[in-house]
Amino acid sequence: MGCIDENLLAELAAIVGDRLTTGQSVREQHGQDLSYHQGHAPDVVVYPKSTDEVSGIVKVCAAGRVPVIPYGAGTSLEGHLAALRGGVSIDLGQMNEIVSVNIDDMDATVQAGVTRQQLNRNLHNTGLFFSVDPGADATLGGMAATRASGTNAVRYGTMRENVLALTVVLADGRIVHTGSRARKSSSGYDLTRLMVGSEGTLGVITQVTVRLHGIPESTLAAVVSFPALDQAVKTVIETIQHGVPIARIELLDQVQMAAVNSYSGLDYPEQPTLFMEFQGTPTAVREQTEIVGEISTANNGSDFRWAEHQEDRDKLWQARHDAAYAALALRPGAKAWFTDVCVPISGLIDCITETRRDIDASGLIAPIVGHVGDGNFHLTLLIDPDDAGELKKACSINERMVLRAINMSGTCSGEHGIGYGKIEFMEAEHGEGVNVMADIKKALDPLNIMNPGKIINI
Amino acid sequence: MGCIDENLLAELAAIVGDRLTTGQSVREQHGQDLSYHQGHAPDVVVYPKSTDEVSGIVKVCAAGRVPVIPYGAGTSLEGHLAALRGGVSIDLGQMNEIVSVNIDDMDATVQAGVTRQQLNRNLHNTGLFFSVDPGADATLGGMAATRASGTNAVRYGTMRENVLALTVVLADGRIVHTGSRARKSSSGYDLTRLMVGSEGTLGVITQVTVRLHGIPESTLAAVVSFPALDQAVKTVIETIQHGVPIARIELLDQVQMAAVNSYSGLDYPEQPTLFMEFQGTPTAVREQTEIVGEISTANNGSDFRWAEHQEDRDKLWQARHDAAYAALALRPGAKAWFTDVCVPISGLIDCITETRRDIDASGLIAPIVGHVGDGNFHLTLLIDPDDAGELKKACSINERMVLRAINMSGTCSGEHGIGYGKIEFMEAEHGEGVNVMADIKKALDPLNIMNPGKIINI
Repeated sequence: MGCIDENLLAELAAIVGDRLTTGQSVREQHGQDLSYHQGHAPDVVVYPKSTDEVSGIVKVCAAGRVPVIPYGAGTSLEGHLAALRGGVSIDLGQMNEIVSVNIDDMDATVQAGVTRQQLNRNLHNTGLFFSVDPGADATLGGMAATRASGTNAVRYGTMRENVLALTVVLADGRIVHTGSRARKSSSGYDLTRLMVGSEGTLGVITQVTVRLHGIPESTLAAVVSFPALDQAVKTVIETIQHGVPIARIELLDQVQMAAVNSYSGLDYPEQPTLFMEFQGTPTAVREQTEIVGEISTANNGSDFRWAEHQEDRDKLWQARHDAAYAALALRPGAKAWFTDVCVPISGLIDCITETRRDIDASGLIAPIVGHVGDGNFHLTLLIDPDDAGELKKACSINERMVLRAINMSGTCSGEHGIGYGKIEFMEAEHGEGVNVMADIKKALDPLNIMNPGKIINI
Repeated sequence: MGCIDENLLAELAAIVGDRLTTGQSVREQHGQDLSYHQGHAPDVVVYPKSTDEVSGIVKVCAAGRVPVIPYGAGTSLEGHLAALRGGVSIDLGQMNEIVSVNIDDMDATVQAGVTRQQLNRNLHNTGLFFSVDPGADATLGGMAATRASGTNAVRYGTMRENVLALTVVLADGRIVHTGSRARKSSSGYDLTRLMVGSEGTLGVITQVTVRLHGIPESTLAAVVSFPALDQAVKTVIETIQHGVPIARIELLDQVQMAAVNSYSGLDYPEQPTLFMEFQGTPTAVREQTEIVGEISTANNGSDFRWAEHQEDRDKLWQARHDAAYAALALRPGAKAWFTDVCVPISGLIDCITETRRDIDASGLIAPIVGHVGDGNFHLTLLIDPDDAGELKKACSINERMVLRAINMSGTCSGEHGIGYGKIEFMEAEHGEGVNVMADIKKALDPLNIMNPGKIINI
């Protein structure tokens, strides 16, 4: 790898002017995401305002063989932002313009630094919303780059389904527009889907066109508790199989429910609990809730709570929204290691149950929360950062969970991505596919300057 | 390119035994799809029975630098199968085993030669169905390779959304398994989506895992006529915007309606007509039909016809199903050139209206049928194959329609693919993206033996 010297800084400054910093705290902040994984500060942070500026920056980096790490909102969870080999962090936060909203076509085009909440605020009064919600107020560029999803992916899909088109700056500074605003196409390789989830290793996403969805006429939230985990998960499986177009169906296990009761002063039964949301016309919502009510009751669900108005729904869902903070509060001073897997839904009961057993046997504290409608669940491992033994135990639990998921024809990450945190599991999941990914990486980034050391070990 | 000599034939025979032919009629049949485009016979056709055999065949071809052209059911429409540079046609028709059906997970894994009707017959009594329906009884391998869609993509998605995992034999014979049975994943590059729609130019798909959907409780079909095209299309746009989860919404224009009346002895008004299908619970279906009924009436729709029972629905939809034959019967002896584009739905009225005006000015006969819920429509240009003037006119109409769609942020092909029939439009649509596709192609197929001359001109 090349190094960042005065000449290179001058060349960058020629493009971005004073929108460039080498200050230590800013650099450190840009090398650390929300994950447990060790951060690595980049050498310099630049703040471009246009695709052309990004192109210029990448050209300078290519000439100097210096790594390029795109930065959105810094909310990734597998060490995606760590400048493992130094380099230039491209903070896209100042590219936050909403380029166009096409109400008739139900799509929007935004610069990569626009956050999902910013877009949704902008859609106010259009009757439309952008559906993908990973929890954090991430940027759309970052969400595309990490193939984000979240609570309502079960109904509206992930970034894979919701990105229509991208503008990407490639490793040599070329600008490419992938996809189109057509809803479907059979015109050539699906470069959009190749870039979605590539975590900055194939290019810097500078503009994103996404699908929007109509705000449903009616929304109803519900919470229901179950004596045992398998009964809760069975309810989810049967709901999906029944074809109920449920908008959200989230599982919090007994450890997580105890955490939210304590953290938020709530009085839920400390049992596996489903948080659900139904959307549609009033009639459709009524029908959906009747079906899911019956399925839940047949699986020993009880303590139903319902809420219709926004305010009441927010209150009902508070326990779910507070889940991460509540988990952290279970062990003050501990660090949280967030990890997730996704399995075919038939494997969900075994995968969660075995993982819970594994955690309990280790003596560690780790609540489970799941986007279970998709077969996706998360673990929050709370560990003492100074205790090597705990870290080792956490590593083992994570590894066993991942291999368990892969053995069930699942994936090592449902929505957190690979970064460098899960790179060691790529071969177990993809086998020869890892070499194919490496071939593509080498073809599009022969100097290996695009977020090196992420996804693929080259 | 290498040539097919006795040695190479012997090496192929060592793999497939007598499942190999060099007979002229079989070769010619394998080099011609259903399109207008000139066929080119391969030198030999082989019929493997397993992924390992396909791998062996491709290795032999790679060693001899001989082109490989995968063959499914032969129903493609842009010259995908033409052995432009000779070579080996790999007919996957004998790889027709249904490997597994996972009812709980609502997915199925099949060998590439299984057709969609075969799969759906096999799903009888499971309560599930495979949704993608391009009209022809294509193989799932072919449908994945061409990113097929069809009438109910508006609700259930195209092959892009319905393929979960693939087994692919790469250009050097390596076997790669892409994706998993998990509903979502953020684990590395989306090789599945890269292979879907790659038309055999990056590898031979030998196994496909697809999503299944629950058979709806209730289905209702409806037909409604409009005085003018824009009123029919406006009804479609408003239906989609209203969020009605319509299962199918097809447009037949006045020329096509006259054709079906004449061909099938029907008595429909010879006006732009929508064929629709509603699915869900009885209540949901009733609600959807009420909403769409109101929208249609407000747009001057009339002559509603409804059907609930399968038999009646089939009768009602007969006009739609007969559309292609009815079009051909408009001009006996003519050859049909099928072409399609897809635009953002707001451009649909202009794109169809201008195209219809263009056709009428040319004096050619060309009915229009559209999967209009997706912004996708088809033209059937009926031309005298011996009249160079007509061919030239048809070329111009096609070119203008394609450029019109691209100028509206649409795509040169909604669902027929590129093959070699639309290769000349790739640059207009993708610009620099074509070079990125070429880089990927060269990385994965350095000898350019995989269906050469398709999608990318190298």
